[in-house]
Amino acid sequence: MTDSLTPTRALAHTQTQHTAYLEQLFALLRIPSVSTQTEHFPDIQVAAEWLVNNLRAAGLENVGVYPTSGHPLVYADWLHAGSDAPTVLFYGHYDVQPADDVELWKSPPFQPEIRKENIYARGASDDKGQIFMLIKAVEAYLVGAGRLPVNVKFVLEGEEESGSQGLIGYAPHHAEQLAADIVFISDTTMADFETPAIVYGLRGLTQLNITLYGPKLDLHSGVYGGGIANPINVLARLLAQLQDDKGHVLIPGFYDRVRPLSQAERAMINAFPFDEAEWLRRIDMAQAWGEPEFSVLERIGARPTLDINGIVGGYTGNGGKTIIPARAHAKLSMRLVPDQDPHEIAQLAQAYIRQLTPPQVRLEIQPLGEAAATLADYTIPAMQAAIQACETVFGRTPVFKREGGSLPVVATLKTALGLNPLMLGFGLPHDRIHAPNERFYLPNFYKGLETVIHFLANYRQVHAAAGG
Amino acid sequence: MTDSLTPTRALAHTQTQHTAYLEQLFALLRIPSVSTQTEHFPDIQVAAEWLVNNLRAAGLENVGVYPTSGHPLVYADWLHAGSDAPTVLFYGHYDVQPADDVELWKSPPFQPEIRKENIYARGASDDKGQIFMLIKAVEAYLVGAGRLPVNVKFVLEGEEESGSQGLIGYAPHHAEQLAADIVFISDTTMADFETPAIVYGLRGLTQLNITLYGPKLDLHSGVYGGGIANPINVLARLLAQLQDDKGHVLIPGFYDRVRPLSQAERAMINAFPFDEAEWLRRIDMAQAWGEPEFSVLERIGARPTLDINGIVGGYTGNGGKTIIPARAHAKLSMRLVPDQDPHEIAQLAQAYIRQLTPPQVRLEIQPLGEAAATLADYTIPAMQAAIQACETVFGRTPVFKREGGSLPVVATLKTALGLNPLMLGFGLPHDRIHAPNERFYLPNFYKGLETVIHFLANYRQVHAAAGG
Repeated sequence: MTDSLTPTRALAHTQTQHTAYLEQLFALLRIPSVSTQTEHFPDIQVAAEWLVNNLRAAGLENVGVYPTSGHPLVYADWLHAGSDAPTVLFYGHYDVQPADDVELWKSPPFQPEIRKENIYARGASDDKGQIFMLIKAVEAYLVGAGRLPVNVKFVLEGEEESGSQGLIGYAPHHAEQLAADIVFISDTTMADFETPAIVYGLRGLTQLNITLYGPKLDLHSGVYGGGIANPINVLARLLAQLQDDKGHVLIPGFYDRVRPLSQAERAMINAFPFDEAEWLRRIDMAQAWGEPEFSVLERIGARPTLDINGIVGGYTGNGGKTIIPARAHAKLSMRLVPDQDPHEIAQLAQAYIRQLTPPQVRLEIQPLGEAAATLADYTIPAMQAAIQACETVFGRTPVFKREGGSLPVVATLKTALGLNPLMLGFGLPHDRIHAPNERFYLPNFYKGLETVIHFLANYRQVHAAAGG
Repeated sequence: MTDSLTPTRALAHTQTQHTAYLEQLFALLRIPSVSTQTEHFPDIQVAAEWLVNNLRAAGLENVGVYPTSGHPLVYADWLHAGSDAPTVLFYGHYDVQPADDVELWKSPPFQPEIRKENIYARGASDDKGQIFMLIKAVEAYLVGAGRLPVNVKFVLEGEEESGSQGLIGYAPHHAEQLAADIVFISDTTMADFETPAIVYGLRGLTQLNITLYGPKLDLHSGVYGGGIANPINVLARLLAQLQDDKGHVLIPGFYDRVRPLSQAERAMINAFPFDEAEWLRRIDMAQAWGEPEFSVLERIGARPTLDINGIVGGYTGNGGKTIIPARAHAKLSMRLVPDQDPHEIAQLAQAYIRQLTPPQVRLEIQPLGEAAATLADYTIPAMQAAIQACETVFGRTPVFKREGGSLPVVATLKTALGLNPLMLGFGLPHDRIHAPNERFYLPNFYKGLETVIHFLANYRQVHAAAGG
């Protein structure tokens, strides 16, 4: 192995860049690229252009913005490692969750600030901080050593937080452009401060927005109360019939395709380091809750569930206002596991909700994104390269985990393009992603950067050892 | 009867005042005196001062602002009709409901505008337009004839829309100041454009705000979903257990004290002119809803009920956001009938809600205003005077009605001070009170004004005929 293929020069280069890294990352975090809010759609474009410039400066080639049915993709590659070297497709997303309630943020969500070694900003951990880390790992080779040990491609999307429909539609028609040996994703967390984690499973997702319409205007509850259906009362009764008080989803057929957990897998899941009391303390909850026949780790990683993510109707200000509201709205999401089909589940849910809706109100259902659950193959050479890189940098073997969250595009990349996912992220479980005061622990940014640099060198070697 | 005691001069005076009436009423409607929103508390003071000046200009005496535990009262009187003449206490309120959603108003809620003979503004019908009409009726006598046929007092409060607790606390300690033969209230509607209505019953009211607290922050529903209780899911299950799908309230003990409706009263209630199809068409509802064993008129006037007036939790913007929210909030109101005790009902509801709340979330209940239901005596002389006045002006006998709304203070004035209520209002059923685009039909303002002028003259006569 020539010196330019070892991590040495790349690692040395990173040591000179700490100030530049923070300046650049802060600039990226200042762009409020919220993909679900129309008022932020121009910011999505700004973020994409920012990445194009940053990828070019990192030494990548064929850098461009590619339109999709939704927000655009940013693509870049460097394909000069030789035909015997493997190709890594780095995937990530430059869009972020909405930042409400803004008043709960200690520093404004789009004005990044470092406090106690954490960068506080919307997107710091999910996922701008992590895609930036991937770009800087590649840059460290290209600028520090003049080349990379493997071929790399980047595909960075702008609507992961709203379902990835653009990339999901794009990928099957651009198999050659996205072809690779694996897709490397840093959009997950470590087990704790010391223990890296490789995620080998993701839950799927189906989201539905439900609106019930009653009278055409808000009405006086004294004048009309008892005479007409109140959309909020009806919505509460409807939602209450979707899940029992033990956490079992009541939609007929919901569990029909759920693959049972083997005793071996339950043992692996429950071996993950997990302090339930500490986990509850961090979120200020007195007790866990959910299907009593499964452990908390099983429930949050490997069991399907149903959550109401938002609800609104009628008067919501201070005090009271005695009205029957014109409408009531709820946002549902269901996390799914293999082999539930997200589209089928959406259909089953819609049919059940229609059946539960009385004729006195009008129902409108808006289906949002759908994503299949994924289970990754963790015997491939790239996994070995990642395990070794973690051992080198962290001094310990990563744990394996089924993640409760969803990366809708991962299932598509796996089924449509045959890309095995390698999910190695460097966030922390308490990074408050999707919540106020999201943060990214800066020492993990640097350790993650080193780990990715080692991974790229290792991967060339184990790939060659495995017969190319 | 001297000429100054007949309505002639007073009625003649009103003919000269149409421009002045509109200028003054518009000025009053421009004051956003919302009693439930702290940001509008200064406007409450402005409205009270405006009324003081207007009552003084009308020729009333002892005009002043009186502090209470809440928003202040405006009081005024004219007590020179002689000790043989009866005394009328005019009650009304100068506070208004909140004006949200402001974007649903065709003209801004606090910028009154006349369209097709209706004044559009928050408070136009409920109740500023109607208290202004009462003041102008008294002014017509005092300015037009130099005296009134009866003694009058005004007590105008600034927190009817938030439960009247100030006046309810004030009244029992100021029995002499408020002493009268009857309390005359214009805060209700006619049966239709042609038919005046006297309301002889009002429902009571108990309001509770409920908040369920879950995690200290909104959490990622993928990372935590299935592991902890979601406050919205819990709230939906809780609310669904308060009322069945037929409209029966499920709070234990809720119906224990409900006075059964006699067959005679059911017949009177159902004799009220009511076109159910037209009533539904106006509010754009396909079907009525509620306890199937009672008619719509019985259900909205003489049966207790439970409505959720507002609900909010989690993400409520466009699209979706996959969170488990930190909290969920609902606003409940229960309309009550004789002999339900509003405080007892509030206690029963709170106990039941506590019992329904699982230990995984924290419950906070905020009780709001309470009001007892009222049934008025409709055999008193003042009722005869009002019936005659309606016949003179409208050419038809008013219908009698039990109103579904609540005027919490009416029960207090009746029980604490022995004041029989005479509720004769000139709004219309489709005035959109408590809703966007509230309006008051201007011809009714003038007919109501004439009716009150006739009533005052009639009342002196029937009072004398009944033996003073």
